[in-house]
Amino acid sequence: MAPQYAPSLRSRLAPLLLSLEIGFIIICALCFEIESNVNAHGTAFSSLYPEFQDVNVMVILGFGFLSTFLVRYGFSSSGFNLLVVVVATQWSIILQGIESWYYRGKIRIHLRNLVFAEMCTASALISIGAVLGTTNPVHLVLITLLEVSGFVLNVWLVETLLKTQPLNSMMLLHVFGSFFGLMLTSILYRQGSEQRFEKEKFDRKTGLFSMLGTLFLWMFWPSFNSVLVDSRTPGRKLGAVCSTYLALSVSAVTAAAVSVLLNPKGKLNPILMQSCMLAGGVAVGVSVSVVHHPWEAMIIGFIAAIVSATGFQHLKNHMLLTFKCHDTCAVLSTHGLPGLLGWLAHLLLQIKDSDDHTTAIRFAVFHICALLITIGLSLSMGIITGLLLKWNFWRPPQDKKCFDDQAFWEFPHLAVRK
Amino acid sequence: MAPQYAPSLRSRLAPLLLSLEIGFIIICALCFEIESNVNAHGTAFSSLYPEFQDVNVMVILGFGFLSTFLVRYGFSSSGFNLLVVVVATQWSIILQGIESWYYRGKIRIHLRNLVFAEMCTASALISIGAVLGTTNPVHLVLITLLEVSGFVLNVWLVETLLKTQPLNSMMLLHVFGSFFGLMLTSILYRQGSEQRFEKEKFDRKTGLFSMLGTLFLWMFWPSFNSVLVDSRTPGRKLGAVCSTYLALSVSAVTAAAVSVLLNPKGKLNPILMQSCMLAGGVAVGVSVSVVHHPWEAMIIGFIAAIVSATGFQHLKNHMLLTFKCHDTCAVLSTHGLPGLLGWLAHLLLQIKDSDDHTTAIRFAVFHICALLITIGLSLSMGIITGLLLKWNFWRPPQDKKCFDDQAFWEFPHLAVRK
Amino acid sequence: MAPQYAPSLRSRLAPLLLSLEIGFIIICALCFEIESNVNAHGTAFSSLYPEFQDVNVMVILGFGFLSTFLVRYGFSSSGFNLLVVVVATQWSIILQGIESWYYRGKIRIHLRNLVFAEMCTASALISIGAVLGTTNPVHLVLITLLEVSGFVLNVWLVETLLKTQPLNSMMLLHVFGSFFGLMLTSILYRQGSEQRFEKEKFDRKTGLFSMLGTLFLWMFWPSFNSVLVDSRTPGRKLGAVCSTYLALSVSAVTAAAVSVLLNPKGKLNPILMQSCMLAGGVAVGVSVSVVHHPWEAMIIGFIAAIVSATGFQHLKNHMLLTFKCHDTCAVLSTHGLPGLLGWLAHLLLQIKDSDDHTTAIRFAVFHICALLITIGLSLSMGIITGLLLKWNFWRPPQDKKCFDDQAFWEFPHLAVRK
Repeated sequence: MAPQYAPSLRSRLAPLLLSLEIGFIIICALCFEIESNVNAHGTAFSSLYPEFQDVNVMVILGFGFLSTFLVRYGFSSSGFNLLVVVVATQWSIILQGIESWYYRGKIRIHLRNLVFAEMCTASALISIGAVLGTTNPVHLVLITLLEVSGFVLNVWLVETLLKTQPLNSMMLLHVFGSFFGLMLTSILYRQGSEQRFEKEKFDRKTGLFSMLGTLFLWMFWPSFNSVLVDSRTPGRKLGAVCSTYLALSVSAVTAAAVSVLLNPKGKLNPILMQSCMLAGGVAVGVSVSVVHHPWEAMIIGFIAAIVSATGFQHLKNHMLLTFKCHDTCAVLSTHGLPGLLGWLAHLLLQIKDSDDHTTAIRFAVFHICALLITIGLSLSMGIITGLLLKWNFWRPPQDKKCFDDQAFWEFPHLAVRK
Repeated sequence: MAPQYAPSLRSRLAPLLLSLEIGFIIICALCFEIESNVNAHGTAFSSLYPEFQDVNVMVILGFGFLSTFLVRYGFSSSGFNLLVVVVATQWSIILQGIESWYYRGKIRIHLRNLVFAEMCTASALISIGAVLGTTNPVHLVLITLLEVSGFVLNVWLVETLLKTQPLNSMMLLHVFGSFFGLMLTSILYRQGSEQRFEKEKFDRKTGLFSMLGTLFLWMFWPSFNSVLVDSRTPGRKLGAVCSTYLALSVSAVTAAAVSVLLNPKGKLNPILMQSCMLAGGVAVGVSVSVVHHPWEAMIIGFIAAIVSATGFQHLKNHMLLTFKCHDTCAVLSTHGLPGLLGWLAHLLLQIKDSDDHTTAIRFAVFHICALLITIGLSLSMGIITGLLLKWNFWRPPQDKKCFDDQAFWEFPHLAVRK
Repeated sequence: MAPQYAPSLRSRLAPLLLSLEIGFIIICALCFEIESNVNAHGTAFSSLYPEFQDVNVMVILGFGFLSTFLVRYGFSSSGFNLLVVVVATQWSIILQGIESWYYRGKIRIHLRNLVFAEMCTASALISIGAVLGTTNPVHLVLITLLEVSGFVLNVWLVETLLKTQPLNSMMLLHVFGSFFGLMLTSILYRQGSEQRFEKEKFDRKTGLFSMLGTLFLWMFWPSFNSVLVDSRTPGRKLGAVCSTYLALSVSAVTAAAVSVLLNPKGKLNPILMQSCMLAGGVAVGVSVSVVHHPWEAMIIGFIAAIVSATGFQHLKNHMLLTFKCHDTCAVLSTHGLPGLLGWLAHLLLQIKDSDDHTTAIRFAVFHICALLITIGLSLSMGIITGLLLKWNFWRPPQDKKCFDDQAFWEFPHLAVRK
């Protein structure tokens, strides 16, 4: 029988959301103003706006529909994704503005801030991919708040301590998001879920919705990787776009080939294909500031697809059985491994480009530190968040209601199939 | 048994459409020319084009898929939506050009005209949302022609009599469209439809299509609200984009919270959620020219979501039972109430900003007159259109064929579910 | 019973794809570099990027979802489409760069090359539309490689021998693609397929996915037709956008009317409607360089829709029974006939605009030669490709596995309908 009442929503979610929004409005009334210099940072509004919209489409539609493959969880996947995006965006605008507020008393909002905020949101969405289906929306909002806080702190630490450029520090979002999510899902592990959940399934139609989301991510990934490149250097921007496009192409073809080779029946696995064709974009994103030749991007895309597909095929079950990590959307192989690969490629390419030994070593040390900070912070934030969420106060869904829209959504006039 | 023949289409729709198109082509051959000054009105073509495409996507895809939640009416929702859009766009390009034709003998077409025309189209689509499912495509085309005529007349009246700026007069489209639609659906009321129509239902997959349309509207609403802002003032444009984005964010979160609080089972209602998360965009759109601070937009979005969700939950049945208004897509609570709220916010913000008492009173009088003209004209055009459509000559669908694609579409090789 | 093993994939597809990608990477490492002059050809990066993305969306999402109407073939339609796009794009970047490589030793990559490459891809996708469902992905990759080679050769021949502008030579892609596809499908004809294939069917939900793809094509067609217009002449670009928009509008309305008139039951046929509403865009695309007045575009759109709808209704079966051409996506009536019509319109308009007799005759001869070269080359390449594909080495799917995703995709956790 369908659950009749959703206690977590009325007594937990609604007050939380309303108080968050009222808080945001008050903070906004006190500190926000629209940036008056519209061409700040050399970015003309009219050329940034289409890129902002591409990122917006990726975050809201791409990630939202990516996980609609779950047959009874489409509304939750896409609807809660929207909730998470808007909460995360508002929260990260505020967090990113703290420094500016401290010095000037005001947070100036520009499209650039919205873009930054949406990239922080993407890191939260990656984390949420790992726990989707076994959590309720209250959990998701809490994860969002903590994850975004952790990620903004991470960016600030890396930029302040290691003088990393924003383009490089932001792109650690894939690594941060996936390790945070994995730690979280491991702490929230439910006994008995070595067996797949009853409703954790897939059908042909929902698979097409998922394909739609994936394609939107795939198509606009060049915008995601190039939006932070300074538009005063259009050559770099063009390079980032072309490199990402080529890496994604190689990655899609390679993912298909590897998927066939790894599958026992020699067929394509649609979910593997959808996850792994994005791996090239992730890996090139992390190393985009040092990729100067298209072939470098293509090789990164090639290796990323192989690593990602192998990880999907073999690691997912290992993670579940050995580490008790139930990773719903396979964020480890979609974002974690390609992110690490991109980090490694960045290291190697930078060393290759260095003029002398000292610079190379200095860079390598800084680069390794950035990764260690990121992984350390993401794992610790994951532990903190996980422990908070284990509290029964948030009323987690029962196992049999996991992966089921009916736990949270009312379908009053549902058509009954005759 | 499925209906075997669609009499309204062959003898009514086809001749109507063909004669319309031939008429349009003749008018076009006589009066149209491409604007030779591509940067007319200070808008560079290359910066307007992406915004035009965003509006285009909203009108064709967003509105088209918004109402695909009706389980057996997906083709009609999206297909007739396209028909309506193209007829309305062509018709409103002609109507808007009358003045220019009168003075210069030619109607010059620029992207700006297409954008204006698509915004008029949006007002027709809102009206059609109120009667969707109970009408045939001949009705829809007639409604479109009359609604667009009424709305263009309304814009002209408001701009000529009250010296209103285009940005403000166009944004009354939400109010005009919804009141026109409500009057129309009230006149076309069918006895016995206090009970929901047999096929006026919803299922999980069609709900996801509807979610897709809603998300496209949601994502591109900042373009819709900012496209009319003069691009020679990029600061205003940036302000319009950021305000709309923040208002939509607040509105989505608030809609979710209110939806949970109002629902007897404490669950989210997907249709309510989809309608009400757009309310902030509507309300801010109507007041966009006087919103100078993000927090103003956020408060407007917050109140709009509450008003809209409450209206959806409580007014929809009232309207049906008391006023005999069968409002298929809840245009009253999605566009009508938030539109009125935006109008009120505009009034209050403008008065607050006024330097002296006289200006404030003068503005208030003009602003109230604009609303009265709009409501008066929309209701009277709604009555005229309703009476015309009651004529049986147009062969309205029988009750049992309402909300059914099979009344109009042939599915020759339909897969039979085994 | 579902097929248990897909022999064509592991032993044929995977090695083919991997060797292709490795080859591409090697060629790229030897010859590619990012164009350093980002404003090459007078096109600013920031204004070209949104148009590139529109074309990208059309090619990947539009064409990919256009053919998802096949009820059991959605993953193959959209997934193999992506494979084909990325292989074709990489291959045509290389082919188009041969000349530049010959003279300068390097192929410089710019967004403009990606746009060109995606237009070549579109011609391959048109061909594939004719044989979709009866081929395996190995076939599709081979078709892609040969079709793109043929088309790039065709463009080079037409431009070199007849001094045709790129805008005109590229637009022959509709004619080239459809004739290539028709010849191919006629050679690959399977005995017994006068009867529709068992699984060549359609249902309401997959029809909506197909509608989604069609709408994306429809919305972004103005970008497709205008992207090659030199942006140093924004007036021409504006003209191309407005003409295409108006032609598409006329074409959508006319297709609906004609569809009703031709249908025995007087209803709309959704597949016909989806194919034919694009006809105006195709026809205007081919003649876009000589369309100077909107009414010319509208008349072209009007006739194109009539020709296309009549072709769809009457020719499709004739082609099947008389010429043994099984044309899955009706590419003859969607691209072939409107393409020829556009070619004819180009001829007539150019002659009308000519100042004197000699120029007109000279143009006519060149224009007819261009068509003859295109048709000749497309038919011969179609024959060569067809003969290659008839080789059983590629392991074509059995008849009963045609139009079935399960021949190539594994659905491990498919939800079983209770």
